[in-house]
Amino acid sequence: MVAKFVSERNLKFLLYEVFDAESLTGYNYYREHNRKAFDMIIKEALKLSKNLLYPVFTEMDRNPPELVDGQVKVHPSVKTIMKEFGKGGWITGRMPYEHDGNQLPHLIANACEFIFAAANYSAGVYPGLCAGATHLIESFGSQELFDTYAPRMLAGKWQGTMALTEPEAGSSLADITTTAEPTGQGYYLIKGQKIFISAGDHDGAENIVHLMLVKIKDAPPGVKGISLFVVPKYRFDEKGGLIPNDVTTSGLFHKLGYRGCPIVQLSIGDKNNCRGWLVGEPHNGLRYMFQMMNQARIGVGIGAVAIATAAYYASLDYAKTRHQGRSIAKKDPALPQISIIEHADVKRMLLFQKAVVEGSLSLIMQCSKYVDMITVLPDDRKEKYQLLLEVLTPVAKSYPSEMGIESISRGLQCFGGSGYCDDYPIEQYYRDARIHPIHEGTTGIQGMDLLGRKVVAQNGRAFVLFINEVRDTITIAEGFPELRPFARQMGESLTTLENVTRHLMQIFMEKGAEYYLADSTLYLELFGITAVAWQWLLQGIAVRKALENDSNKTEQAFYSGKFIALRYFFGYELPKTRGLAERLLTGDGLTVEMTTELFND
Amino acid sequence: MVAKFVSERNLKFLLYEVFDAESLTGYNYYREHNRKAFDMIIKEALKLSKNLLYPVFTEMDRNPPELVDGQVKVHPSVKTIMKEFGKGGWITGRMPYEHDGNQLPHLIANACEFIFAAANYSAGVYPGLCAGATHLIESFGSQELFDTYAPRMLAGKWQGTMALTEPEAGSSLADITTTAEPTGQGYYLIKGQKIFISAGDHDGAENIVHLMLVKIKDAPPGVKGISLFVVPKYRFDEKGGLIPNDVTTSGLFHKLGYRGCPIVQLSIGDKNNCRGWLVGEPHNGLRYMFQMMNQARIGVGIGAVAIATAAYYASLDYAKTRHQGRSIAKKDPALPQISIIEHADVKRMLLFQKAVVEGSLSLIMQCSKYVDMITVLPDDRKEKYQLLLEVLTPVAKSYPSEMGIESISRGLQCFGGSGYCDDYPIEQYYRDARIHPIHEGTTGIQGMDLLGRKVVAQNGRAFVLFINEVRDTITIAEGFPELRPFARQMGESLTTLENVTRHLMQIFMEKGAEYYLADSTLYLELFGITAVAWQWLLQGIAVRKALENDSNKTEQAFYSGKFIALRYFFGYELPKTRGLAERLLTGDGLTVEMTTELFND
Repeated sequence: MVAKFVSERNLKFLLYEVFDAESLTGYNYYREHNRKAFDMIIKEALKLSKNLLYPVFTEMDRNPPELVDGQVKVHPSVKTIMKEFGKGGWITGRMPYEHDGNQLPHLIANACEFIFAAANYSAGVYPGLCAGATHLIESFGSQELFDTYAPRMLAGKWQGTMALTEPEAGSSLADITTTAEPTGQGYYLIKGQKIFISAGDHDGAENIVHLMLVKIKDAPPGVKGISLFVVPKYRFDEKGGLIPNDVTTSGLFHKLGYRGCPIVQLSIGDKNNCRGWLVGEPHNGLRYMFQMMNQARIGVGIGAVAIATAAYYASLDYAKTRHQGRSIAKKDPALPQISIIEHADVKRMLLFQKAVVEGSLSLIMQCSKYVDMITVLPDDRKEKYQLLLEVLTPVAKSYPSEMGIESISRGLQCFGGSGYCDDYPIEQYYRDARIHPIHEGTTGIQGMDLLGRKVVAQNGRAFVLFINEVRDTITIAEGFPELRPFARQMGESLTTLENVTRHLMQIFMEKGAEYYLADSTLYLELFGITAVAWQWLLQGIAVRKALENDSNKTEQAFYSGKFIALRYFFGYELPKTRGLAERLLTGDGLTVEMTTELFND
Repeated sequence: MVAKFVSERNLKFLLYEVFDAESLTGYNYYREHNRKAFDMIIKEALKLSKNLLYPVFTEMDRNPPELVDGQVKVHPSVKTIMKEFGKGGWITGRMPYEHDGNQLPHLIANACEFIFAAANYSAGVYPGLCAGATHLIESFGSQELFDTYAPRMLAGKWQGTMALTEPEAGSSLADITTTAEPTGQGYYLIKGQKIFISAGDHDGAENIVHLMLVKIKDAPPGVKGISLFVVPKYRFDEKGGLIPNDVTTSGLFHKLGYRGCPIVQLSIGDKNNCRGWLVGEPHNGLRYMFQMMNQARIGVGIGAVAIATAAYYASLDYAKTRHQGRSIAKKDPALPQISIIEHADVKRMLLFQKAVVEGSLSLIMQCSKYVDMITVLPDDRKEKYQLLLEVLTPVAKSYPSEMGIESISRGLQCFGGSGYCDDYPIEQYYRDARIHPIHEGTTGIQGMDLLGRKVVAQNGRAFVLFINEVRDTITIAEGFPELRPFARQMGESLTTLENVTRHLMQIFMEKGAEYYLADSTLYLELFGITAVAWQWLLQGIAVRKALENDSNKTEQAFYSGKFIALRYFFGYELPKTRGLAERLLTGDGLTVEMTTELFND
């Protein structure tokens, strides 16, 4: 039996009632689509997830990849999944028609990605990486590169990867040492080591195509000398046959979770016979990669909220069916036990999850809508959305990641002792989700990205645009009597965020970047809670509008539940900004000034 | 190589400089002890942990218990550990001399328990349960029961357990259905099911002795009809040989962590041939068990802070040796990379861990000191400490459990991608620690215990005593200029806690227990942060006193590090009470009034 892992109703609420996905079809780029088509795509994604992904969710965890004679063996369903995703056009979803894509709005494509990840996070990573890697080649590579690799990757036959990290260069990409030696024959000879490469080798695909960061010999030092290469596991020989390209899988990591997908270590060019093909211009690799990286960061947010969503429904189901204890008002042991969902503390833990996951998903959809606006608008009108997307990307990556773990942990807690055992899927969700604050830039990196780059860029224009977006929402919310208290609270929180930001700017000018950035992770947390409160206010507006119309009973319950979750977020979560603001406003440079010798005993 | 898993220096700081363990030897009960003996015991506990427990920490996780032909097989080292703990007198540590114990102060015995759990949490559970179960027999059982079971359990030959939970009675013990039928021959016939029994069956011991909650036939309903029984796996026949006692291991749970210790399901009396012996009076079982349970709750706190401590040192070591990135002030890629401990955000994550684990351990030691005062003082003077212990027990159980997980998660984060892989022990700490908010009463149960029982008992006397203890500390702290700002902040936080408590009392009177207890988990969190801040202020006083005296450089660094952690706690953790207080002061009964139908889609 397939348990509930996402809510189709909630997805449609966000897509149509909050973010008006239909309006996108009014733009030229998306004119071939319509609401009915969107609905069908969502239905198909759900079907595929129920039939193909969810059934092997536990199995792929219990039978993790193995490295056998230099070849990574994965669960046999991976091959089927790649094939079905290729055949169904899921990998080409967002690609333009001219490249045989479906030119899907990001709102819809990300909704599908969310569904897949909720059903089986590890499984969704394989086709997701294919799409991302192909998009890189499409955007920056030559036609020849595209023709060689894209059709096979989009068909799910060849696996695409992002090969960035090296043993001595994780968060610090400036320090990669993998090198490319020009040959004058259209290709370079590549030599080096890469680690933590997701889907970096497996027998579910016929070939692995690494989009790899490499330094061309004598390149400038640091990030300015990084180039992007296509480095396949197998390359074509003169006769068009595939031969090994001197890329060896030298290790396979055993992980806490996310076990359905292998993470490998690669040795490249051990025999001096590994060929790589330059993508775009030399020394522009990091810029190119960051196109994919920014999408990947939203993708991490999607994965994080997806796992937490599945965990929420698992714990909700358990809380409804498990009987334990009695109401505080009627403790008579002769009475039958009640469903644990009747206990206030269990309701609180469920509301926390609902508030976090539906708020996070809304933030993801907000970003997706911005991507769509960037896609459809002419250059002179898209800048606003570009800036909003940039400032929200670190938030959309880290809030769902950090809070998703908290959310799943509360879900696990609803199960009591059973949550700690593998008879239920919740312990796997708990393990799977822990990767998200780490990969594609840790939470600490996101904090520095937000405060050190995004907030200050163009004299703080992105920040001001964000504030204006929230203010616009507050204005609309004030039109609904039931939303007024929340609009007011939102306004106060926004002022807090502005004050904190202004205070930090002052610190920057007085004491420099180190002090300014010292608590950027806390700033990110403050920003995240504020942004998700905004998303709840947006949802609240859609709820009030819907409740004004006639609606059947089920729908009334749906909207009322939404409103309760909004109240929860503003009542329990938003007040957390108080302590964060206090700290940020009184920061004393403790972590900058403290010498590390004091970590003594 | 054995990595550092605890700090002997910090333990001694707490034992002697904060809690003056030596002063206990001035009381008659502990007069045979002295500081030198305490030090030797700590040394021995460290030695045993390094030689016997830590080396199999990972191995016991990777080779978890198996159920083979109805018998649980555990790692072979369990037998050795039980034997060595028995031989070394570690199980009898706290027992009085008259029962061949060492009459150790709880401060010292709990310090040892902490060391063992930090080295290998699962391993420490086996002897810990033996000690707890024997203590129950000693306190409430007949001499005959004691003579039959205690010597073997204290020698580590027989395993003791706590058998409470049943499939339909986890948190709700009122609903147990295991029954005892009197036979008139000194024993009862026991029949029923128990689940989640730690060390409930294994081949590292020759017998398993369950201290089991059972209802005697025709007992009153609910918790008032629960009795305590000794139910062994093997019982003596007339000739003094051991024969099976009809206790069958019907299941073994596969767990997220804490895998070195089996958790089993038991079928009791399937053949109507299971004999149990009543401990103490009928229908008093829950009261008896709660003696053990309260100790077990402190024990959970010890286990939680122990695992988090080991995780802290693991991440500290990694942060010192791992090089990545450059200082924000000097970003030149030509410079060598710096240790990640030099980054402010990593320092913050390490300080967070230090503040949480050393603060939690201090709270545990505070409770241990209270137990010692109860032990040494005459009846008319011990009540104060009894009440303080009671009000702090749910806090000492849950703060280390909940915050320990956060702490380990930040530790894991310091490792980046490596933290997610099993090449380092941190992922195991992360899994092991997740049990603590669940077993021996979930965090939700602790919250209700604190607010629903402890805070209101005797017209709030325990609460007032606690407030007075903190006020006394504030007064002393005000005598040190460097501590004055923290004393002031502590005073404000204490006022907040009092205001919130008063407000909730008002709610209780106006709206009843359901509303009063609805956010008791948040109240517990607020109380916990306040209590640990108090512990940091206590430590701060000891630090200032020490710094006033001449001291060598290493010692100066130790005390300065302590002071930094205190500053961290007051700067980053204590402000979290703001949001909690805001919520608790404006609680609107959301989770009481919300009908569960609104969890719709």
